[in-house]
Amino acid sequence: MDAQKLDALRHSAAHMLAAAVLELYPGTKLAIGPTIENGFYYDFKFPDGVSLSENDLPKIEEKMKEIAKGGHEFKRKEVTVPAAKDFEKDQPFKLELIDEFAKESKTLTLYESGPFTDLCRGGHAENTKEIPLDGLKLQKLAGAYWRGSEKNLMLTRIYGLLFATKKELNEHLAMLEEAKKRDHKKLGKELDLFTFSETVGKGLPLWTEKGATIRRELERFIVDEEIRRGYLHVRTPDIAKLDLYKKSGHYPHYKDSMYAPIVIEEEEFMLRPMTCPHHFELYLRTPHSYRELPMRIAELAQLYRYEQSGELSGLQRVRTFCLADAHIICASEEQAVAEIGKALDLIEYIAGVFGLVHGTEYWYRFSLGDRANSEKYYKNDAGWDKAENLLRAHLKFRNSHFVEAPGEAAFYGPKVDIQMKNVNGKEDTAFTVQYDLCMPERFDLKYNAEDGTEKRTFVVHRSSIGAIERIMAFLIEHYAGAFPLWLSPVQVVLTPVSEKHVDGAKKLMEEFKKVGIRVAIDDADESVGKKVRNAAKQKIPYIVVVGDKEIAGEDWMIRVRGQEDQMKMSKADFVAKVLLEIKERV
Amino acid sequence: MDAQKLDALRHSAAHMLAAAVLELYPGTKLAIGPTIENGFYYDFKFPDGVSLSENDLPKIEEKMKEIAKGGHEFKRKEVTVPAAKDFEKDQPFKLELIDEFAKESKTLTLYESGPFTDLCRGGHAENTKEIPLDGLKLQKLAGAYWRGSEKNLMLTRIYGLLFATKKELNEHLAMLEEAKKRDHKKLGKELDLFTFSETVGKGLPLWTEKGATIRRELERFIVDEEIRRGYLHVRTPDIAKLDLYKKSGHYPHYKDSMYAPIVIEEEEFMLRPMTCPHHFELYLRTPHSYRELPMRIAELAQLYRYEQSGELSGLQRVRTFCLADAHIICASEEQAVAEIGKALDLIEYIAGVFGLVHGTEYWYRFSLGDRANSEKYYKNDAGWDKAENLLRAHLKFRNSHFVEAPGEAAFYGPKVDIQMKNVNGKEDTAFTVQYDLCMPERFDLKYNAEDGTEKRTFVVHRSSIGAIERIMAFLIEHYAGAFPLWLSPVQVVLTPVSEKHVDGAKKLMEEFKKVGIRVAIDDADESVGKKVRNAAKQKIPYIVVVGDKEIAGEDWMIRVRGQEDQMKMSKADFVAKVLLEIKERV
Repeated sequence: MDAQKLDALRHSAAHMLAAAVLELYPGTKLAIGPTIENGFYYDFKFPDGVSLSENDLPKIEEKMKEIAKGGHEFKRKEVTVPAAKDFEKDQPFKLELIDEFAKESKTLTLYESGPFTDLCRGGHAENTKEIPLDGLKLQKLAGAYWRGSEKNLMLTRIYGLLFATKKELNEHLAMLEEAKKRDHKKLGKELDLFTFSETVGKGLPLWTEKGATIRRELERFIVDEEIRRGYLHVRTPDIAKLDLYKKSGHYPHYKDSMYAPIVIEEEEFMLRPMTCPHHFELYLRTPHSYRELPMRIAELAQLYRYEQSGELSGLQRVRTFCLADAHIICASEEQAVAEIGKALDLIEYIAGVFGLVHGTEYWYRFSLGDRANSEKYYKNDAGWDKAENLLRAHLKFRNSHFVEAPGEAAFYGPKVDIQMKNVNGKEDTAFTVQYDLCMPERFDLKYNAEDGTEKRTFVVHRSSIGAIERIMAFLIEHYAGAFPLWLSPVQVVLTPVSEKHVDGAKKLMEEFKKVGIRVAIDDADESVGKKVRNAAKQKIPYIVVVGDKEIAGEDWMIRVRGQEDQMKMSKADFVAKVLLEIKERV
Repeated sequence: MDAQKLDALRHSAAHMLAAAVLELYPGTKLAIGPTIENGFYYDFKFPDGVSLSENDLPKIEEKMKEIAKGGHEFKRKEVTVPAAKDFEKDQPFKLELIDEFAKESKTLTLYESGPFTDLCRGGHAENTKEIPLDGLKLQKLAGAYWRGSEKNLMLTRIYGLLFATKKELNEHLAMLEEAKKRDHKKLGKELDLFTFSETVGKGLPLWTEKGATIRRELERFIVDEEIRRGYLHVRTPDIAKLDLYKKSGHYPHYKDSMYAPIVIEEEEFMLRPMTCPHHFELYLRTPHSYRELPMRIAELAQLYRYEQSGELSGLQRVRTFCLADAHIICASEEQAVAEIGKALDLIEYIAGVFGLVHGTEYWYRFSLGDRANSEKYYKNDAGWDKAENLLRAHLKFRNSHFVEAPGEAAFYGPKVDIQMKNVNGKEDTAFTVQYDLCMPERFDLKYNAEDGTEKRTFVVHRSSIGAIERIMAFLIEHYAGAFPLWLSPVQVVLTPVSEKHVDGAKKLMEEFKKVGIRVAIDDADESVGKKVRNAAKQKIPYIVVVGDKEIAGEDWMIRVRGQEDQMKMSKADFVAKVLLEIKERV
């Protein structure tokens, strides 16, 4: 079924939902009922004394189906504003909408479908019979402010799913079920990786030792790999004078995502929302020769961007994050495009370490400049043309999976967005590699060319893995908390059979620690079975039950995460195997 | 010579300086002339048209000596305020001082010494002859605002050194000369370790790749060593709601060193000035058992503290710094004191890695509570008694070098300060280990005891190495920029003999890189001699000149930093030696 048709069916289903609610709960006031990805919702103000729970949804769903089966045609009626107001006289939210629509048009439209008529711009099925009732499910309830503002009344939103077939609905429900299990907020708590504190503030995660261990391994991996590839890792301050962002030209564009300035001795300081101007100031400390270019200035940079409290979500949307950032100062357009290629090589290497497949699990979006939009487009037509043509040719040359996206570029140049699907099946831009036509001018970035003249540089902005917080959210869900060995906070757990094996287990623990294996001991006063189950719940890769035989040096029986059969192996072989797997990041 | 006597001589010399200036530059206005460590200064407003340079200092010094040799007695004269004003009628700064002193006393004192009389509270030699002229040297000129405020007139300050003997003066001058060479601001620039940018802001260092490399090695060393010793390394946000610092009680005490709040959606957020409340909030996420204690929560924490721009100095005094911080949650006073002991073990281990000797190069200051000062003293007499007694006993037991310092404790408990001498010979508290009697109450920190009851915890605050910026300043000066191999940003430099050896050198570079050695190649179009001198100036530990023989695989001749003789060795042996030295941090 094509997307437009499906959308029309979802819209029609929203009307059925309102019709069902009005039959079951007379006197309910209707707000709006648009379609969304996978379905639709409708916002209601229920009569006083009526308080819905999720248990009421099947009943409403039944009523919806009953009405739809009636086979009502959707009939369009054009009416004047006063007529529309008269029709909706008992519906205060609709009256507010009419007043607003009346600013644009003198006539409005109503859509009638059997017992129910709604103020509506249209886009429906011909007949309510067309709605694929097998693919329908009322999903959940939520609170929602009228017009999205917390100053307004809180309404009740009912969400519905609608797919063309029962099979598609079931697949979607199964995916949601799996996503729920993998939800990083849920797993973050169960595995004790991070927490939030009301006193510290919203959107500011506190990482426990376990979560911080994963972060540290990840960060060291990225930093070391980047250094290996010729990046110069630097450290620049997380605050700077407002002047810096005025100089870079970010201030007017990014003002709304920056926090308010802090005044120190009559100067205004900002929490930095981006790293680039900091790296440019560092570049400017001395003159540079063409021999030094391309200069790849990298940093794990803490950035601060304003997010509304309503938008905050676990590690996915936070108020401060650590970006694996870099700015590559180049001598020519060709060098810049080659560097973008190398950045993509790095990204593909890292994605490979996480087992992500290019083309299906992540791909590129080549975002082009909108030359008509002077707000979002830094004027330099020839520069954009050259950059876009070189980049397109490069993406084709390397056989990248990419789609073109006109008008999605940054204001200073075209970019390659790294697109990913999260466990909810939603596509998202994870991070970007950008070509910059503007900053070299603003910061007067130059180099001494081979011919003895001073020349303007070109700049590439890129991330290799995005924000650490966000990739952590992604990885927790990607691995469902069962991190590969090198990232696991506890790699091996030793569970002594009884009190008398605790000392022996402790000695073994020291041996493992000494060679750099993250090992824990579970000496709680519980049965071995319970302890093994606990360790499995914590998704620890290897569990060793330590009894007389293990201490005596006989072969060990090792429980491997996700495997039925235990692994039989000498202690020395096991240690060697663990160390090798850590080193190879398998 | 006793300190009081020497101070009186320095004060007398300040009078001689003013006398000399008045003779040489009639019409000069006098401000103040106190003694300072190692000498004295006097602030002057010279007549219009007179502009002093350092070249004028010998002449003034000669005149001072000439006057002093005159053998004038210091004569005290008590005068009324009007008489004092009349005497100083041509000295506007003195008149301002008289008005101020007049608030406290009706009579003032003048000190006459031959040709010169000054408004002065006294503390002089008997006779100007006593001033040890051999130990006198006018040191430098500086600008200084009248009364230290930039709203006032800028005066000229002349600094003088005065020691009891010529030998002591010369020793001091030699130390200053050495300190100048080792100055971290100077070396930081010469070795390209860090820089500052006016546009980014004062007190906010930007670390180059080389400086950031040293930091990274240092930070990883600290983190890994702490983890090895059972610390749990976490990550908590650098901003938090003001509420958090009100809850901790820091806010009234630390208000002046905190930056102004940032308002986000009607809540006030602060750049954190300390880590402790963040760690306590993390501890509070779940209940804890006595089995988990002591729990050593550690973090490399970015902190923000207000420093006046006039107080900023290189890496030593900055506006944000990264503290190697930890908070140890303990089950009893005894456990807390044992943990302080373990923290001192760690500190002594780290100091040992840097070759610092306990007792001479660093020692402890045991800071006790001032029970009379209710501002600085958290009221809990029994708690302080027990903590101070246990700590004192522990410091004695471990044979630590320590001095006791009554009244120097933190407001929440006694502490052990780690005292060091910097290259200027100045003693400084590098960082501290603190016993906390207060926070466990404020944050209601509890644990489930073995007997089934809930009990109050005890807390130790400690650093292992202090602020990274500050220890970097210290280490740059301590090593005079010649960092040990493991910290050197470039460990080995390859200098090809000629153009035709560049490719061979590059291949060697890749071999070195692969095994984790930080190697650079100097392929500039310059003579080998020049390149070797450049590398030596950059204090690179090993220099290898790469010619036909080196590429062919014959034994290498290696230049070792600080050694006359070259070292002859096969490539394989050299690589093994370098790797071993890095690993052992020699």
